[in-house]
Amino acid sequence: MGVKRIAILGSTGSIGVSALDVVAAHPDRFRVVALAAGTQVRRVIEQARRFRPEVVAMGDEASARAVRRELAGEPVEILSGADGVERVGGWESADLILSAMVGAVGLRPTLAALRAGKDVALANKECLVISGALFMDAARRSGSRIIPVDSEHSAIFQALYNGQRAALTLRPDEGDLHPQIRLILTASGGPFRGWGRERLAGVTPEQALAHPNWNMGRKITIDSATCMNKGLEVIEAHHLFGVPAARIAVVVHPESIVHSLVAYPDGSMLAQMGMPDMRTPIAVALAWPERISAPVAALDLPALGTLTFAGPPDAEAFPCLPLAYRALQQGGTAPTVLNGANEVAVEAFLDHRIGFLDIPRLIQATLEQTAPGGMNTVEELLEADRWARVCARDWIGRHGSGSRA
Amino acid sequence: MGVKRIAILGSTGSIGVSALDVVAAHPDRFRVVALAAGTQVRRVIEQARRFRPEVVAMGDEASARAVRRELAGEPVEILSGADGVERVGGWESADLILSAMVGAVGLRPTLAALRAGKDVALANKECLVISGALFMDAARRSGSRIIPVDSEHSAIFQALYNGQRAALTLRPDEGDLHPQIRLILTASGGPFRGWGRERLAGVTPEQALAHPNWNMGRKITIDSATCMNKGLEVIEAHHLFGVPAARIAVVVHPESIVHSLVAYPDGSMLAQMGMPDMRTPIAVALAWPERISAPVAALDLPALGTLTFAGPPDAEAFPCLPLAYRALQQGGTAPTVLNGANEVAVEAFLDHRIGFLDIPRLIQATLEQTAPGGMNTVEELLEADRWARVCARDWIGRHGSGSRA
Repeated sequence: MGVKRIAILGSTGSIGVSALDVVAAHPDRFRVVALAAGTQVRRVIEQARRFRPEVVAMGDEASARAVRRELAGEPVEILSGADGVERVGGWESADLILSAMVGAVGLRPTLAALRAGKDVALANKECLVISGALFMDAARRSGSRIIPVDSEHSAIFQALYNGQRAALTLRPDEGDLHPQIRLILTASGGPFRGWGRERLAGVTPEQALAHPNWNMGRKITIDSATCMNKGLEVIEAHHLFGVPAARIAVVVHPESIVHSLVAYPDGSMLAQMGMPDMRTPIAVALAWPERISAPVAALDLPALGTLTFAGPPDAEAFPCLPLAYRALQQGGTAPTVLNGANEVAVEAFLDHRIGFLDIPRLIQATLEQTAPGGMNTVEELLEADRWARVCARDWIGRHGSGSRA
Repeated sequence: MGVKRIAILGSTGSIGVSALDVVAAHPDRFRVVALAAGTQVRRVIEQARRFRPEVVAMGDEASARAVRRELAGEPVEILSGADGVERVGGWESADLILSAMVGAVGLRPTLAALRAGKDVALANKECLVISGALFMDAARRSGSRIIPVDSEHSAIFQALYNGQRAALTLRPDEGDLHPQIRLILTASGGPFRGWGRERLAGVTPEQALAHPNWNMGRKITIDSATCMNKGLEVIEAHHLFGVPAARIAVVVHPESIVHSLVAYPDGSMLAQMGMPDMRTPIAVALAWPERISAPVAALDLPALGTLTFAGPPDAEAFPCLPLAYRALQQGGTAPTVLNGANEVAVEAFLDHRIGFLDIPRLIQATLEQTAPGGMNTVEELLEADRWARVCARDWIGRHGSGSRA
């Protein structure tokens, strides 16, 4: 292949930094043409000096000014604010946009990439959780391919489309594949796997922040402890692969080695495995449909010895997963509301304002107050998100501040 | 897709019968146009009445006469002998030939299929073990696709080429894939997994015929006990996928659920899993690149609970596997000689004429007597095969008859 020109939305975050590691190891294959970041001025300047992009966008004008000062005289354009970041998303000379900003701030620039017909390596969860239908529709219209970076979705993507350039333009419900595939997402089960409600009621943020397999941020670590992370992944998988919720299952797999599976009606299952290291799915997404080396330890199955599997998390102890299925079945903006309420709930839990089991209670109450709306524009979605947060904060005002059961 | 027209070489054997089961469940997708069998007259007549092929070929003239008598007046051509079976292999109206005859008798009709540019679902092991280079060369010249039916190779094939029409015309060493893939064949380890040489020396044919996972014939059951089956599979995988022996590993996996794996340089492994039931790889091969339903129980990972893996079989206790690697590295007709010597050895072991550990001894002695020859024609290969058998029988004459250590 020729050199692939890459734009990175969120270059200073964990995914962005890992992606630049992978890119740096393959100067013959990749060229970084655009970077976007929030406010980490020092790190962006280093990255710009090293990778010499055509453009850098910073989340605010103060950061942009600092970068501009430092890089004065260098042949790089410095943009700022949401508009600047959005321009990086649709940056003309880029072949592939890595969407790795965290949160709703990633929506617009990623949509810009899809509308410009760029391929998107998607690490931002909100694009699919908040606005899956809108995003997939934009990709189909422009012919963009979305290559997931999340390890579970990367696993399914690899199992379905290994080596295929067409990838997601061939959707299971429209294309060549048999409509009766099932997706099986694996879940570590989190640190409280097997716990009952009584024990979970007393869980503290400190306990929940000790997750066994992946090195993750605080929000996603709590999502892993409540199993909401798996619920959000079910929603994402539904949109990415066009498979209805009824044919997406969750299986507990504590070792986090089998990252997910696809089951075919002929009795065959295809699985992707690997060490839990994000540089693998990043390298897969950047090089797709080819393969490149990545600085990741090879999986040694004999050394590992055993892989174990168990049924899905107990619905009574971990209601966040059934809540996500319910929101997906409600459709419209219900997953948007689920996500907004969950973010507020996790923040309140981390601040000791609500208990562990209040997280699903708050989400359920918020979903019940909401009639699922349409999702035709990013504005509608952000409005639903805002409304969910208002409802959720209101619930905390009424129930929160240390209530524990 | 339209209706796929199928010819079956070996319709009365275990693979042939299972394939007709799968075909019968999908009358809208498949039509059987040609059958070839050895001498099982009754079964062929039933099959011909049910599937109404254009032609039936029987291995000998007496069987053909019996079939002809029974099917007189029906619109079916009855052929006989090696030439008749070879005509079925290249049968003009067929889209796909299932090569499921056991042994060297499958070589000529399968080669006829490849030379006629037909796609071949390959269940015959000898085509690749005895004559891999010749067969792959014929496939490349004509553009035939070879879709393996053996569960391990089907697993690797699915992992590499899932959903791709091009399949084996894209070879790892020539095409799109990174040259640094590694193949990992799983092995049940056989009934004597973990045994040492002392204990193995006393193994009887009766003990060896009790294999845990698959319902197989006697010859292949012994091959599984000596681990020669895995050695033959390494040779087959080398030819099918164009991967050198040094990048093909064997891992013991007693449950026989993960049928094999492909490892990529980015740390990703793709595996195919399923219940040990040949109807899955048969359905995969017949429908390729689409997927169909097959009457096979879906794999239930939580019910299964655990998958275990261990290093390759101990080379000292199971020398057949290193012998196969050695033959592959010697090249030319060395694998042909290995295979011929093994067949003679297994037969002698089943007849109580040699001991269990004499099997690798005999093979090694035969390989050491042989200079690897060229493999340009089927005749050269069959000559090497005959010569190996002569040497092997000679060895038994000198060492056999109940020698046990």
